[in-house]
Amino acid sequence: MEFKDIVMQRYATKKFDGRKIEDAKIKALFELIRYAPSALNVQPWKIKVVTDQKVKEQLKPATWNQEQITTCSHLLVFCANTDFKGLIERLERLLKQAKMPEDVAKMVMGMARDYFLKIPPEAQLAMAQHHVFLALGNALNGAKSLGFDSCPMGGFDPKEYSRILGLPSTLVPTMLCPVGYAADRPMPKLRFPKEEIFF
Amino acid sequence: MEFKDIVMQRYATKKFDGRKIEDAKIKALFELIRYAPSALNVQPWKIKVVTDQKVKEQLKPATWNQEQITTCSHLLVFCANTDFKGLIERLERLLKQAKMPEDVAKMVMGMARDYFLKIPPEAQLAMAQHHVFLALGNALNGAKSLGFDSCPMGGFDPKEYSRILGLPSTLVPTMLCPVGYAADRPMPKLRFPKEEIFF
Repeated sequence: MEFKDIVMQRYATKKFDGRKIEDAKIKALFELIRYAPSALNVQPWKIKVVTDQKVKEQLKPATWNQEQITTCSHLLVFCANTDFKGLIERLERLLKQAKMPEDVAKMVMGMARDYFLKIPPEAQLAMAQHHVFLALGNALNGAKSLGFDSCPMGGFDPKEYSRILGLPSTLVPTMLCPVGYAADRPMPKLRFPKEEIFF
Repeated sequence: MEFKDIVMQRYATKKFDGRKIEDAKIKALFELIRYAPSALNVQPWKIKVVTDQKVKEQLKPATWNQEQITTCSHLLVFCANTDFKGLIERLERLLKQAKMPEDVAKMVMGMARDYFLKIPPEAQLAMAQHHVFLALGNALNGAKSLGFDSCPMGGFDPKEYSRILGLPSTLVPTMLCPVGYAADRPMPKLRFPKEEIFF
């Protein structure tokens, strides 16, 4: 499937038919998400995968009672990972394992420490959240490329999500992405004219 | 080209060869960006397109002197558009032109006003910036799908960019995306194991 067709056919699905997505396809989606880009490859995201119907029912009231939550196959809760110290340590191990030349690895790690550790916690959270949207974009386009549907959702109560899912305070639920097979139809795809966007 | 191959072959190009991307391809890229998703379709982004070599030379020192800026074909400056009042008015016109049923349009506009206009300016900026990363994701994957290369860049001075490009205060430069034909080679694509990302 051409990327152009993915972009034009993807839409925010409001209702899924409840069918489960095959395991191989979900795993393929996870790979597309995992390989999203991030500054200095710091990957400041974690994704909680919810498939238990009882948990979905609990989450629904914290999501304006929208039925994507309970009708989807898998609910992906995209969390910003604000533990940059831990991320940078893991990145250092990853570079060592990959046998990256020591001088290059040292330079990258120095840049990562300067870039992520010398900023206030609010800026760290903002940066992690920005990256979540790159991973989310791969999930939305990726779902369509694999033959199923998705919905980006920002309208939910992150504190309730943290409580219900028992998330540590370093993980901040930022966006939801239920995936499954659509039981609705797309609306026409409207956008502002290009002259109003590019200048 | 399969989306999986796009995701795996795309990389942050550090140097371009200076060749110009054909007009038809750049226009195709703009369409992929323009059709990125946004909450309630508010599209809070504008993209300044820089092709003038003199302007690129001026911007380079405000970008840690990185040579992607001067060797790329087109430099896309992704700006968060914080003028939500203006965006919502344009959205209303768009829905009218598309002859969306009046009750649906009214509901959407009410939600948009509640969601975007009743929050403080910092939250509006954060929301607009989040969306920029969805548009950026389509640019990065889109470039590869069209046969050229790109680099997501967050390391630049947004105030200097605003000054040099004469941007209004409602537009906040958030990410850069130089595009062109690579004159370097990708590093191995390393990521944290999936067990450390999905839980």
